[in-house]
Amino acid sequence: MVTGIHHVGVAVTDLDESIQLYRSAFGAELVHRVRNETDGIEAAFIHTGSGEIELLSATSPDSPIGKFLAKRGPGLHHVAYGVTDIAQALADARAFGLELIDDEPRMGMHGSLIAFVHPKSLGGVLTEFVAI
Amino acid sequence: MVTGIHHVGVAVTDLDESIQLYRSAFGAELVHRVRNETDGIEAAFIHTGSGEIELLSATSPDSPIGKFLAKRGPGLHHVAYGVTDIAQALADARAFGLELIDDEPRMGMHGSLIAFVHPKSLGGVLTEFVAI
Repeated sequence: MVTGIHHVGVAVTDLDESIQLYRSAFGAELVHRVRNETDGIEAAFIHTGSGEIELLSATSPDSPIGKFLAKRGPGLHHVAYGVTDIAQALADARAFGLELIDDEPRMGMHGSLIAFVHPKSLGGVLTEFVAI
Repeated sequence: MVTGIHHVGVAVTDLDESIQLYRSAFGAELVHRVRNETDGIEAAFIHTGSGEIELLSATSPDSPIGKFLAKRGPGLHHVAYGVTDIAQALADARAFGLELIDDEPRMGMHGSLIAFVHPKSLGGVLTEFVAI
């Protein structure tokens, strides 16, 4: 049982420019910014009221976000739902026949446990659970 | 100034199947369903806690959603932010140089005034304001 939209992930080509755009155009606030060389990603979390926008940029072209940008261009990347019990959410998703990308929860860039469900199970929508 | 993520729009090929998927996999509730022949769209609003998912299906292949599905396949379509003053939100967006799809607010399928901002102004993200 999900408790709401936690954030929406957006792939961007220029992180600084995109942060400025969301701040200026929507009065949104930068919450935090983090770089993960292992995954080749630099992300910024933008508070928009209820729900955040996670801006995702690639630190290398062969990273997952780099490949996404090359294939689809910048734009919507994933939706994340808050869940109170991530182990149960994954068990339910598995029981329902959804294909999981993460069989077990792992630490995400928010500092919370996360797990992704494959977009082919959910009508083309890459979907994330975030433990809240 | 946006007050939060109001909903995320998702283009789907089969509306009934998609509603069932969100209900079963996430325990989400169908709020309402509406068909608009003028725009060639049938939509279902799914309550996920804070924030809704708007499932969008095409009633004809040459409708905007029909063309989107043909070009990109099913998946994430737009993000909508709640705003307390939609006229001001549009004025701010225009002043900031964003390209508006709707120069004036119009009645949306939620029964609220809405207006869309062109994705080319916002890093490929089709963005909607919803008066709340």
